[in-house]
Amino acid sequence: MTASPTRPPLSPTPRSTPTRKPQRYASDRDALYDVLDSALLCHVGLVLNGSPVVLPTAHGRDGDTLYLHGSTGSGNVRAAVDGADLCVAVSVLDGIVYARSLSDHSMNYRSAVIHGRAAPVTGEERKTHALRVLSEHLSPGSWDYARTPDRKELAATHVLALDLGEASVKIRTGDPSLDDADRDAHTTWAGVLPVHTTFGTPVTADYVPEGVAVPEHVSARTTGRTVRPPSW
Amino acid sequence: MTASPTRPPLSPTPRSTPTRKPQRYASDRDALYDVLDSALLCHVGLVLNGSPVVLPTAHGRDGDTLYLHGSTGSGNVRAAVDGADLCVAVSVLDGIVYARSLSDHSMNYRSAVIHGRAAPVTGEERKTHALRVLSEHLSPGSWDYARTPDRKELAATHVLALDLGEASVKIRTGDPSLDDADRDAHTTWAGVLPVHTTFGTPVTADYVPEGVAVPEHVSARTTGRTVRPPSW
Repeated sequence: MTASPTRPPLSPTPRSTPTRKPQRYASDRDALYDVLDSALLCHVGLVLNGSPVVLPTAHGRDGDTLYLHGSTGSGNVRAAVDGADLCVAVSVLDGIVYARSLSDHSMNYRSAVIHGRAAPVTGEERKTHALRVLSEHLSPGSWDYARTPDRKELAATHVLALDLGEASVKIRTGDPSLDDADRDAHTTWAGVLPVHTTFGTPVTADYVPEGVAVPEHVSARTTGRTVRPPSW
Repeated sequence: MTASPTRPPLSPTPRSTPTRKPQRYASDRDALYDVLDSALLCHVGLVLNGSPVVLPTAHGRDGDTLYLHGSTGSGNVRAAVDGADLCVAVSVLDGIVYARSLSDHSMNYRSAVIHGRAAPVTGEERKTHALRVLSEHLSPGSWDYARTPDRKELAATHVLALDLGEASVKIRTGDPSLDDADRDAHTTWAGVLPVHTTFGTPVTADYVPEGVAVPEHVSARTTGRTVRPPSW
């Protein structure tokens, strides 16, 4: 998980350039990394047979590369491997924003949108590295604990690398807006209800014999609120 | 929030019909309703200038209609109003699935994908109803507490109605898979780490005078784990 030596600005193209509420757009790469590293899943959009298709999937970031993966049996994955234009949205909901007016009700969030065509990751070493990045994002510590993919499993998985060159980040934080019409509504409450993603108590699989302890890399997550790769 | 009197099956078209892992697809409308009502936000995909675009937004359901809304100033919203083909994905992450092999690592989730063209909701009464459904989904109780939209605010908002006729639901629950190769790895733990969405302690806006209490419809959410419209 190394930072990119050259860090170009975000939003270099018209489709990744904000046209509304510019104050909500972040322009630095750290904001992009924060969103990608905080979210447990992303939504990938592409055009298939003329229709938009959006599907949730796992992701993992290494520097300025976003890795995705999927079964070689999936039509959507094959379309992405064949160079379909992709749009990946990653959203973290941080709070429900209660204003004095319904029109100013909103959400606090961190949201990234990335455009581009992904390159298939090939070769055993590069593919294994990418899968490790994906694994460390979803389940940090598992790579060194569970059985790593064999050649047959590697062959059944397509791995994709999407460059983070064309991206935008939109963030809303803080208090609800206050419309002039509501300035004197002093007795009306307004504020933010924080939203957290939390982990519960691990549930051991039925096929695991009694006495096998939940490993530390799993049990330790229950206390934490946010998801960070181990290098953070 | 009334149930539809006729409840057609899901997945009536090729693009909404599963081709892989059929055991993970639900075929009843209650499963669709559950996903839509449980998620705090959705991701809307459409094709804009030939490129796929995916954006997070709020949603609300009334029977077999999904409501969306957005500013009249947004190009994506205007494209949807003009009849662009939409794909709406709604995903609820329920757990991280730790298997004995990395290849069997997965997520437990409930996921819905809806295809179709949305109809603009017009007329003050219908538009107000739709906005109320959206509001009750994101912030139940706010409609009766905060100031409702005036004509100018109504006019600045596009509201869209998407029929839930063409949809698919995919669900994964339960234990991690167990590959034959890992059957004898008795000392290796496997199981599920539950993922919850929780609400924190409400944060009052700076502009609210001291002594204004957090209303019950906000403070009561802190104790709950799931989001349900009040009619559930």
